[in-house]
Amino acid sequence: MKTAGLVLILVSAAAGAETHRLKPTSGHQTFAVRPPILTVKPGDVLESESLWGDWYERDGGKWPGEVGPIAIAGAQPGDTLVVEILKVLPNRDTAISTQGLNFGALVPDSGTAMLNETFPRGRFVWRLDRRAMTGTLDMPKSRIRSITVPLAPMLGRVAVAPEGEEAFDGLWPGRFGGNMDTPDVREGTTVYLPVFHDGALFYFGDGHALQGDGEVCGSGLETSMEVAFRFGLVKGKAIRWPRLEDATHIMVAGSARPLSDALRIAFVELIGWLVADHGFDKAEAYQLVSQVATARVANMVDPNYTVVAKFPKKFLPPK
Amino acid sequence: MKTAGLVLILVSAAAGAETHRLKPTSGHQTFAVRPPILTVKPGDVLESESLWGDWYERDGGKWPGEVGPIAIAGAQPGDTLVVEILKVLPNRDTAISTQGLNFGALVPDSGTAMLNETFPRGRFVWRLDRRAMTGTLDMPKSRIRSITVPLAPMLGRVAVAPEGEEAFDGLWPGRFGGNMDTPDVREGTTVYLPVFHDGALFYFGDGHALQGDGEVCGSGLETSMEVAFRFGLVKGKAIRWPRLEDATHIMVAGSARPLSDALRIAFVELIGWLVADHGFDKAEAYQLVSQVATARVANMVDPNYTVVAKFPKKFLPPK
Amino acid sequence: MKTAGLVLILVSAAAGAETHRLKPTSGHQTFAVRPPILTVKPGDVLESESLWGDWYERDGGKWPGEVGPIAIAGAQPGDTLVVEILKVLPNRDTAISTQGLNFGALVPDSGTAMLNETFPRGRFVWRLDRRAMTGTLDMPKSRIRSITVPLAPMLGRVAVAPEGEEAFDGLWPGRFGGNMDTPDVREGTTVYLPVFHDGALFYFGDGHALQGDGEVCGSGLETSMEVAFRFGLVKGKAIRWPRLEDATHIMVAGSARPLSDALRIAFVELIGWLVADHGFDKAEAYQLVSQVATARVANMVDPNYTVVAKFPKKFLPPK
Amino acid sequence: MKTAGLVLILVSAAAGAETHRLKPTSGHQTFAVRPPILTVKPGDVLESESLWGDWYERDGGKWPGEVGPIAIAGAQPGDTLVVEILKVLPNRDTAISTQGLNFGALVPDSGTAMLNETFPRGRFVWRLDRRAMTGTLDMPKSRIRSITVPLAPMLGRVAVAPEGEEAFDGLWPGRFGGNMDTPDVREGTTVYLPVFHDGALFYFGDGHALQGDGEVCGSGLETSMEVAFRFGLVKGKAIRWPRLEDATHIMVAGSARPLSDALRIAFVELIGWLVADHGFDKAEAYQLVSQVATARVANMVDPNYTVVAKFPKKFLPPK
Repeated sequence: MKTAGLVLILVSAAAGAETHRLKPTSGHQTFAVRPPILTVKPGDVLESESLWGDWYERDGGKWPGEVGPIAIAGAQPGDTLVVEILKVLPNRDTAISTQGLNFGALVPDSGTAMLNETFPRGRFVWRLDRRAMTGTLDMPKSRIRSITVPLAPMLGRVAVAPEGEEAFDGLWPGRFGGNMDTPDVREGTTVYLPVFHDGALFYFGDGHALQGDGEVCGSGLETSMEVAFRFGLVKGKAIRWPRLEDATHIMVAGSARPLSDALRIAFVELIGWLVADHGFDKAEAYQLVSQVATARVANMVDPNYTVVAKFPKKFLPPK
Repeated sequence: MKTAGLVLILVSAAAGAETHRLKPTSGHQTFAVRPPILTVKPGDVLESESLWGDWYERDGGKWPGEVGPIAIAGAQPGDTLVVEILKVLPNRDTAISTQGLNFGALVPDSGTAMLNETFPRGRFVWRLDRRAMTGTLDMPKSRIRSITVPLAPMLGRVAVAPEGEEAFDGLWPGRFGGNMDTPDVREGTTVYLPVFHDGALFYFGDGHALQGDGEVCGSGLETSMEVAFRFGLVKGKAIRWPRLEDATHIMVAGSARPLSDALRIAFVELIGWLVADHGFDKAEAYQLVSQVATARVANMVDPNYTVVAKFPKKFLPPK
Repeated sequence: MKTAGLVLILVSAAAGAETHRLKPTSGHQTFAVRPPILTVKPGDVLESESLWGDWYERDGGKWPGEVGPIAIAGAQPGDTLVVEILKVLPNRDTAISTQGLNFGALVPDSGTAMLNETFPRGRFVWRLDRRAMTGTLDMPKSRIRSITVPLAPMLGRVAVAPEGEEAFDGLWPGRFGGNMDTPDVREGTTVYLPVFHDGALFYFGDGHALQGDGEVCGSGLETSMEVAFRFGLVKGKAIRWPRLEDATHIMVAGSARPLSDALRIAFVELIGWLVADHGFDKAEAYQLVSQVATARVANMVDPNYTVVAKFPKKFLPPK
Repeated sequence: MKTAGLVLILVSAAAGAETHRLKPTSGHQTFAVRPPILTVKPGDVLESESLWGDWYERDGGKWPGEVGPIAIAGAQPGDTLVVEILKVLPNRDTAISTQGLNFGALVPDSGTAMLNETFPRGRFVWRLDRRAMTGTLDMPKSRIRSITVPLAPMLGRVAVAPEGEEAFDGLWPGRFGGNMDTPDVREGTTVYLPVFHDGALFYFGDGHALQGDGEVCGSGLETSMEVAFRFGLVKGKAIRWPRLEDATHIMVAGSARPLSDALRIAFVELIGWLVADHGFDKAEAYQLVSQVATARVANMVDPNYTVVAKFPKKFLPPK
């Protein structure tokens, strides 16, 4: 099991790590406390897939929901769940993207209500070439006629059960993770989530073969994914918001409306992290972050918007 | 003179292009209509420098203002000014960054008023190594003690005189460009600005040797810069918001509060650009942009916030 | 039973209306689907009280939660629940208001995170004179020393169970009503709520003896209330957002962040209501609303902010 | 001259107050420093009228601009200008309101850009009965056919020249006052504006015979007004934002985007005012304001939105 390295140091791994194979047949529409469909130990690997369903087959079809919950044995409120993403790969030859009507960053939606006529509904079928790792879209009304772009597979949703008795529709991101819709949740990234309930109760789903910043039309190249996760726990260490780590950056994902508040959460938590775990003075961390950190607008379409603040690991002090 | 290539095709260049050398001695605090300090022709090159002054020498010092206005002969309302950035290089060995009190993305400011105590004022002196192109900051209160980071020089402010009789303090970005504070305004980038007045009346200043996304503390590594620009005109073609182009991307810089509206402007204009100049259908452009465009939060501290939407040139149709 | 008059015309009332007396002993922390604690018929009256508890007794005490759910027999998804508020009267001689730390419109909160020091925690005990209907606060640090103000009792929270499987903490307002925190939910007002589940599953609580617009410090004069409601149903008529009606106005309560979006929801729904039920042309309704409607910022502190748009009933056409 | 009473105590009035009559023939499109068209003394009364022009006569006509600047002798930066509004009365029999396209709270605008089709342009001619003080609108497409409503005349714009060299289009409200578009600027109200330049340089215009909260369609019942002002000065006392006072309330008008920030400015300044001038402790003022203050959303359509926070004068301590 990967140690979380510079970031979170006390990751417990039970002896005798196992690999679990899970073939999900149905999902859940909300992130909530429910009996787990599987229990794994820290150190265990889960190989599974995200759900395909009616939504992908026809306009107006029902969303298949998220897979889970998976209980992680020993996880308790106040711990941090560690999810290493070992694999996210499309397992179909098509991906779907829908746009228009009342969902999207550039049209009125259920939050930003307006009197105007809505934007016309569109449903686009992308052909995936899984060997070349490209997606192709016919654009019959455009001079270019067709476009082929490289894929960058990711998972829109990784979550634990939310705090208390709350239950949020699968469209929501928040402190529990959820529908953060950030391209940073991809193979090679480790996600840290706060644990609010015994077992943590992990959910995943909503694969995107590709997605631009902000997910402005409201969807990526939606398809099902082969996935593999390795789970870990940081006992007795609570985090307020989801954190991510890849080869080059440590990151915080803040989710809120308006967008400025999502950015504020991400940066304030990032600075707090540098202070708490890396020996930075708060004012000096604020200065350094202002010069070297980057920000990604992950989504500006979900009930909360998500901004990811990123700090280069090369500027962390040696341990 | 570089043709604007894929982007804006009719750039006029007068015969007999000249190179002008300008040593500015004072600046202006607002972007406004004023008699030009120099008139150049399309195709001409301007070599100059941004202003150093009291602000850089002591906390509370007066801002030296921006250099300009430079008139571009033949520019008329409804044209587009083309500014190729040939050089942006620090010409000092120090850069200054200030933070705290009532300016910054993570503290109350004159816009987001609060009852809390303000964050303490900080003034940081970065040492620049212009050969290695690095900046070094002492961090005496942090475990790391000192940090050295690579520079990425940029200009915070490039502007034309705003529309009508309006005059905006140098802190403002807007349709006229201004204090967009985006790292994308760097050597190798071409900036397109709408022309609102005869001669366009170009201003520049506010060099940053480095700046993170959002400029969250309210300043970058502020220093003076050697600069060179080549000017061009697109006659009879109006743009609504500043556009940028570099080797890999075409971009639109939207400036507004709140941050979501800056992003909306940038993406809506980008999609409009693809439709108007590159033969895309609007709905298909919306779909493609949603999957391949990226967004930079340039600043979240100025009177308007700035978001830059970026589209990869490799996905434009051949001409 | 009051007919909803100009607003919603088909209110069914079962024969044999009863009056129920309910003495609640515990509450719930979330608005959610749960087995009802009582079932009433349309036309029935419920006399009850909101909960007092530890929160009111000491700083940091636990919130007693909301009373409910009450099932209304015959209510089905797609109906509208009608709640006439017959009584809201304080039943204690004290009210509590807390402020500061990370909750409130004028300080950073869990949404609007900042680096500043937080505002000091304050807890204020108001003395209520229920005969004179006034509240008195000692202000020992102010020249005025003490202030006595007239009361205007209201309920912060009236709700149905939210749509689908979602469950929101008691702090949330939304389409289901909830913690709208508007002084308009008072004796004499009729509240209309969309029904998402069989029985509607009505909750109430959070009495305020008085509250200013925006509830800017995060709380009103919090106390327990004697309440009485008469329930009705509009069968087969769905509304999107809570509506209110009193002697002079019809109103819509929109809840969202940012504040502008709450206002947009309230006005767009109000205009839609005028069009659907009162024979107004959409553009003409937009014009008239713009000249005669008022808006109340009900709360700017909860997870969603609430704005109430109000249209004078005297400008409705005769039926 | 009215003393500002409880609010601002040192109002200087020159001996020999005069009444000036000004018949304006043209206006200005920006609030800016310009040579005054008239100079008055503190204590003097100005009787004049706001401008009628092409904008009122035909769709797409040019806005006549604002009247001014009027210099107030002796006004210096750091003083407060006092403007008692003695009269605001329509002097025409018609008023115009336009809506739709890209201006308004409920449609995309130049700030909140969207991809949707815009809302259709509408231009409405209201007939004014100046004896009955009512306005009548034909509503041929609505069941009600016609509506008659009481007038409440106000001035959309009262301003001083903005700080420094800045110049803002007449659509802007800000610290200098300007297009606050609040029904509170009416006969009987006293407006306090910060002085940034010698003579203050007062402007007025944009009469509304009636306007709803938020001015959501983008205009009120626009018409020309007979006006009368009495000017005063508070020497050596600076205010940050416009203040208003009428028979019952002291008020602060905050102007910013987003709307939440306009509200924050108004309330933070109001609390600061109670602390500075009325002997309130800051935390106690925060508490009292939270329970007894009201807020008006004045406009949600201008480049800055305006919120007016109102505190009842009856709760001020005796002097």
